[in-house]
Amino acid sequence: MYILIVKIHGHNNGKIMLLTNATLAAMDGKSTYGLVEKAAVAVEDGRIAWAGFEQDLPASLRDLESLDLEGRLVTPALIDCHTHVVHGGNRAREFEMRLEGASYEEVARAGGGIVSTVSATRTTSRADLLAGALKRVDALIAEGISTIEIKSGYGLDIETELKMLRAARDVAANRNVRIKTSYLAAHAVSAEYKGRADAYIEDVCIPGLEAAHAEGLVDAVDGFCEGIAFSPEQIARVFDRAKALGIPLKLHAEQLSNLGGTRLAASYGALSADHLEYADEDDAKAMAASGTVAVILPGAFYTLRETVAPPIDAFRRHGVAMAVATDCNPGSSPMASLLLAMNMACTLFRMTPEEALAGVTRNAARALGLDDTGMIAPGLRADLAIWDVEHPAELSYRIGFNPLFKRIFGGAL
Amino acid sequence: MYILIVKIHGHNNGKIMLLTNATLAAMDGKSTYGLVEKAAVAVEDGRIAWAGFEQDLPASLRDLESLDLEGRLVTPALIDCHTHVVHGGNRAREFEMRLEGASYEEVARAGGGIVSTVSATRTTSRADLLAGALKRVDALIAEGISTIEIKSGYGLDIETELKMLRAARDVAANRNVRIKTSYLAAHAVSAEYKGRADAYIEDVCIPGLEAAHAEGLVDAVDGFCEGIAFSPEQIARVFDRAKALGIPLKLHAEQLSNLGGTRLAASYGALSADHLEYADEDDAKAMAASGTVAVILPGAFYTLRETVAPPIDAFRRHGVAMAVATDCNPGSSPMASLLLAMNMACTLFRMTPEEALAGVTRNAARALGLDDTGMIAPGLRADLAIWDVEHPAELSYRIGFNPLFKRIFGGAL
Ligand SMILES: [Zn+2]
Ligand SMILES: [Zn+2]
Repeated sequence: MYILIVKIHGHNNGKIMLLTNATLAAMDGKSTYGLVEKAAVAVEDGRIAWAGFEQDLPASLRDLESLDLEGRLVTPALIDCHTHVVHGGNRAREFEMRLEGASYEEVARAGGGIVSTVSATRTTSRADLLAGALKRVDALIAEGISTIEIKSGYGLDIETELKMLRAARDVAANRNVRIKTSYLAAHAVSAEYKGRADAYIEDVCIPGLEAAHAEGLVDAVDGFCEGIAFSPEQIARVFDRAKALGIPLKLHAEQLSNLGGTRLAASYGALSADHLEYADEDDAKAMAASGTVAVILPGAFYTLRETVAPPIDAFRRHGVAMAVATDCNPGSSPMASLLLAMNMACTLFRMTPEEALAGVTRNAARALGLDDTGMIAPGLRADLAIWDVEHPAELSYRIGFNPLFKRIFGGAL
Repeated sequence: MYILIVKIHGHNNGKIMLLTNATLAAMDGKSTYGLVEKAAVAVEDGRIAWAGFEQDLPASLRDLESLDLEGRLVTPALIDCHTHVVHGGNRAREFEMRLEGASYEEVARAGGGIVSTVSATRTTSRADLLAGALKRVDALIAEGISTIEIKSGYGLDIETELKMLRAARDVAANRNVRIKTSYLAAHAVSAEYKGRADAYIEDVCIPGLEAAHAEGLVDAVDGFCEGIAFSPEQIARVFDRAKALGIPLKLHAEQLSNLGGTRLAASYGALSADHLEYADEDDAKAMAASGTVAVILPGAFYTLRETVAPPIDAFRRHGVAMAVATDCNPGSSPMASLLLAMNMACTLFRMTPEEALAGVTRNAARALGLDDTGMIAPGLRADLAIWDVEHPAELSYRIGFNPLFKRIFGGAL
């Protein structure tokens, strides 16, 4: 039984809109999908004013300008909580060289790998970084996405890390989409600091964080804890500084091996630990205790032809919230479809369609520290997606097909 | 060096259009991608009149109405040579039940499996079959596709098989797309004939073929040679009748086991054998000898979590032409993106981006018996796709991203 909640806003200046004849997947965690048939949603001042059975609609809302959805499904607008959509260049030729049999050394000699993205990003202007990102952002918006997390991490020098974050803020100024930034200078050691990771942390990563924070560019601090990147001790130094500045934390952890990054992130109360293919039961326990979200990134697993899947069952058993994201990046996951990430989470990791949908709504919001979105409930932002589907499982079932009917962002169609 | 070919048409009534400042991937098999930079293409009466280096453009074509492509890539329009886009219902709930741990028996008891698609297709009107198919067709057209093969095979009675093929023809009447039909009553034994596959072939499959052929509905005859479907002997009876009627052949073969379907298809000179996960070196030799195209369907491999890949290396060694298709169907491949099928062919089967692009152009045309499309060459249909990419490998590299700029179908933008 759905519980009726009515919220009357203090002022009525905002235009109110009423969605009628809808099927809701409220994703509020109270029932399967939070499913309500024959439902209505009232929107006021960019917020959800009321949602529930249409027959219970308060009389005061019945005469509002309404849109008959003819039974269509309404979900919270989707949230892509882990992307690298701001970057220079692309690595299609590297993808091709590998498939033609080139070794990693040959690819590296031809200028491939993350190095190529770093040098392209350094030489790309802020305006061109924005233009490139908008292509990927537009593809995501077309799938009903309202909120996108964007990381730095292809500059590896202070100037370029800041340029990337400025370009990420520019996205929000140019599209009806909400952007959350993560400072990820601890993504890789720059060529200039090769073999001197500690010095890179001290000379680049931490001063860059302070500069970016002073400019208001940092919503979270992220890192890559891995043999090819940074040790837990090095990450801890970045996290200590971030914590002192009051910035929330995230971490790329346990993607290629288990170095203890997940437990480190949990010990700092991080918002999320991401990838997690090599995480174990103890990591799951630590995340459950700290409330750290597991961000599942099947696009990278698929592209790298990884064979070890993240421990989904352990996350379920210990009650770890799972999010799903594209990881949209030019190397290991050149993916610009969150619906496809949902299908891959189901097909490759045996997540259920309901888990996948929670992973791109309620739990994705949590992974970004947002408590005003990701569900359909009174008082939350009216960020909604309306779909031409019969059942919410269809959003995960289809492959390379976008059934979006309309997106509502902050109450606006 | 690109060889200049000029073709002057006898009449000049048709509107001529000139594409300039293009990069061509002619896909003519003469060089890597048939790549020509700083190129032009002239279109006349729906055909390619001229293609080559822009500086070699004949004077008579220089004043035509032209479109400056600013360096964009032009490929042949794409061809999806294996789909089941006409069908009733969808199987999202079955997908969900399986992920929730239901056994095959439980799914079957709940009415799942191909049986559910057959009963939905039987009770769906021709108009509604068309409406459903158009959603998937529109998604394919949006990716620069000009030609789609559509199979029957969810009726399993004569009336519904014909209804499906009529709906397939209706697609061509309702969209700017070319449709090739395949009669696939030998897809499964109907419930009415359970355990009596021979009788099904005699009573339904062959009379249905004759009726469909008489109505002009059959461009090719297809079957499913597998333990759960039909034996090579049963398929041979259908093929014999098709051959007598002069209809080209195709076959779903070696998908789940090796029963000899591929060698049977080759012995009949079939246009294609499709799936082929369990095909072997001898099958590859037989296909090379008969010129039968290998149609690679990574969407079904991915969805079924198959672990045996088709013998791509053997196909290469023996010179078997490889096509790539979506297999768009409600059960084992609910995929409506041919670009994604290209990426999966590369990622999962280690095909190269050039092989993937040949697989959805030149070789896909061959798999449908078409010699007027699939390449950019004078005299062929002006079915072209223009892409916002720097290199043709990008079409396979990206995942869930559509860089189409414009599609030209029969010479019309
Ligand atoms: Zn990442
Ligand atoms: Zn098929």
